[in-house]
Amino acid sequence: MSGIISIPELLKKKRDGDELTPEEINFFIQNVVTGNVQDCQTGAMLMAMYLNGLTDEETVSLTTAMVHSGDQLHWNPEWEEFLVDKHSTGGCGDKISLVLAPALAACGFKVPMISGRGLEHTGGTLDKLESIAGFRVQLSETEMKSALETAGCFIAGPTMTLAPGDKELYKRRDVTATVDSIPLVVASIISKKVAEGTKTLVMDVKVGSAAFFQSEDKARTLASMLIKVSSGLGVKTRAVLTRMNTPIGRAVGNSLEVAEAIECLKGNGPCDVVELVSTLGGIILEMKGHVKTLNDGKDTILNVLNSGEALEKFRLMLISQGVTEVIATTLCQGDMWSVLPSVSPNHITVIKAYSSGVITEVDALRVAKAAWKLGAGRSKADEPIDHKVGIRLLRVQGEKVKEGEGLMEVYHNSPELPVDIHKQLEEAIVISEKADKTVQSLIIDIITN
Amino acid sequence: MSGIISIPELLKKKRDGDELTPEEINFFIQNVVTGNVQDCQTGAMLMAMYLNGLTDEETVSLTTAMVHSGDQLHWNPEWEEFLVDKHSTGGCGDKISLVLAPALAACGFKVPMISGRGLEHTGGTLDKLESIAGFRVQLSETEMKSALETAGCFIAGPTMTLAPGDKELYKRRDVTATVDSIPLVVASIISKKVAEGTKTLVMDVKVGSAAFFQSEDKARTLASMLIKVSSGLGVKTRAVLTRMNTPIGRAVGNSLEVAEAIECLKGNGPCDVVELVSTLGGIILEMKGHVKTLNDGKDTILNVLNSGEALEKFRLMLISQGVTEVIATTLCQGDMWSVLPSVSPNHITVIKAYSSGVITEVDALRVAKAAWKLGAGRSKADEPIDHKVGIRLLRVQGEKVKEGEGLMEVYHNSPELPVDIHKQLEEAIVISEKADKTVQSLIIDIITN
Repeated sequence: MSGIISIPELLKKKRDGDELTPEEINFFIQNVVTGNVQDCQTGAMLMAMYLNGLTDEETVSLTTAMVHSGDQLHWNPEWEEFLVDKHSTGGCGDKISLVLAPALAACGFKVPMISGRGLEHTGGTLDKLESIAGFRVQLSETEMKSALETAGCFIAGPTMTLAPGDKELYKRRDVTATVDSIPLVVASIISKKVAEGTKTLVMDVKVGSAAFFQSEDKARTLASMLIKVSSGLGVKTRAVLTRMNTPIGRAVGNSLEVAEAIECLKGNGPCDVVELVSTLGGIILEMKGHVKTLNDGKDTILNVLNSGEALEKFRLMLISQGVTEVIATTLCQGDMWSVLPSVSPNHITVIKAYSSGVITEVDALRVAKAAWKLGAGRSKADEPIDHKVGIRLLRVQGEKVKEGEGLMEVYHNSPELPVDIHKQLEEAIVISEKADKTVQSLIIDIITN
Repeated sequence: MSGIISIPELLKKKRDGDELTPEEINFFIQNVVTGNVQDCQTGAMLMAMYLNGLTDEETVSLTTAMVHSGDQLHWNPEWEEFLVDKHSTGGCGDKISLVLAPALAACGFKVPMISGRGLEHTGGTLDKLESIAGFRVQLSETEMKSALETAGCFIAGPTMTLAPGDKELYKRRDVTATVDSIPLVVASIISKKVAEGTKTLVMDVKVGSAAFFQSEDKARTLASMLIKVSSGLGVKTRAVLTRMNTPIGRAVGNSLEVAEAIECLKGNGPCDVVELVSTLGGIILEMKGHVKTLNDGKDTILNVLNSGEALEKFRLMLISQGVTEVIATTLCQGDMWSVLPSVSPNHITVIKAYSSGVITEVDALRVAKAAWKLGAGRSKADEPIDHKVGIRLLRVQGEKVKEGEGLMEVYHNSPELPVDIHKQLEEAIVISEKADKTVQSLIIDIITN
């Protein structure tokens, strides 16, 4: 570190478009973590990185520096071959992790899934799981190991010492308008996956109106960079480009999505959720050589969903993460709504079809924003959310409706559904006299390098 | 303010190269001043402004917002026609303000000169004046008014409420590598000049190795923008491009420069200092219509220097700013070194000529950095400095020397002159067998729009 230059000099280099060395990037991240970089300097660096970009080498350096800024999780050596995970760039109604982690565990894998919370219209897997009474998202490394032993998977927040460099940059990116920078996104995602100790990863990269990137080109660039950088750090990765214009499944909102995930684990999931779970899981099985083709892999996943094996792994995971056996069992085998939080029946408003025809559009972004406004999401980190509220789609894209029929049920907490949310949800659905465009496949492409 | 967008949205606009409205820039500055903008957001905005630039309109808006972020100084209405000032972008040995403010006062002007402190190798006018026992740079508005009444000028630091928006940005620019951005420089300079209430301004824009900008093109751009923005805010401005490769005058260091300034006020100044003072002052006289030509203006300035009228204004200014009459009078009429702080005689080291020939170069940057290392400058804001130390040039550019003759006297505080400073000063001077280039004129150009 002796020959290292100062933080203003690093800023000047990045500002002027010069490439930072691995040593320089590491110096910056270490000093961010120890509090020796002024907040205005971190903001300036994020903006300089956003505007001038990072080379592939710089992105690998940044990711590595973030991994090394904290402790890496270490698992039993005999699990080495079985450590797999999935990550998604986030979408409306995306409850895939809740189904896929136990499904992969049921296939014999170990899934140390470090996940996050939601912000604004983007839901968070941890928030959804917290709908379940007693579920703890903060686990010690020992508790994580124990969950991997008994359930084969866990879904938890990062430990305090996991990639703190990423934590420090991440919390400033939102307020400095530096979120949608591909290299910064890549470093943030991959650093946590490397630090959690996974060896094989499948990425769900969303494309569309409610996705992180609207353009397919940008999503492809992100996917390629994720694969390149993670393989540079020893994690085999494939990416799936999937459409995110319409909500995934029929439920949006925390407890509503948990319920839908459990239905899926019982083999009764909506087609699109099942398609996504089986594709992402099938890719892992194919990557690990457990099956010859992706279709074989998808079938294997469908089997563990239909057999109840995945559901049992989910139940064991819940128990490992603090849920009582009674609640976990009721949730999986009994009346789930007797344990999931829900609004009172007179706080459910039905949005009705304004005309007869075919639903040609359900705008995921409008639905997601409505759910956020209902209280399912937060505007600032650490704000409490309401697990009970949300939206259930009674009709989805491609289905026929008659005027006056119910399109959605809105679960709200105030006696009346606020007018603006009602309007926003009405506007989310387009009904045409005849189907003017074919419903497009959810999976756009699978990217392997 | 009701329809205004959020700080992250402003950052996004600037990041994406869109123009911010006057309202948006004002919103940003007001919130910086009230502490409602996070430090990382200010850093990100500075970097986005640096990299994407500001349009002329944005620069005017930023300057206006900075002026309105605090209180403007108000003077007697009958002074309106006489309020003039000068500003320099800073150079080595630049003591022009100390001579010019009283000289202009002697011509009947009112000079409310708000000035600054030095940082690193750049000296500060306020630091120089604090070499004089009792001199106070922090004045109330009432004290400023009183100084303008009795002396016709003051040289003081900004009041607490003068352009606080500039203060907040300025202190973050150094650490975020966003100092040398022309629009940010312009807004910072002009906001203070508008807030101090001056109506006519002459700018000394330095060009060269020890200047803020090394390239003449950049300096010309700065000069034009300074003129455009200040006239947009009601201050008539002209700019002089001057060379800054070699120190101004023969003294570098705080008390040494005060002494040289007083010599100049007695009509005994070095040619280059006199040339610069008379040109800058002459421009003001010409702009105000007090003389027909610049040469007439220069003569008027020379007259007030030679007659002692400027010196008397200086003496009155010192008294107005807290110096006792005894000290002020001794300084101006007696043995100035009996009241100025100085090192002990055995702490003066002479640097000798390594060969015979003509001095073709005295590198201002090396001399300035040596003075800083001696203790004449500071590395961080608010660090104390040593007023006694510095360098006196015994020979300057274009003069002949013989091997072994003294080139400089170095005034140091340690018993021995540190070897690295000795070396740096030796390297600052180039002696050639014959003059290989003509000594260039100090004044490069006068820019009126």
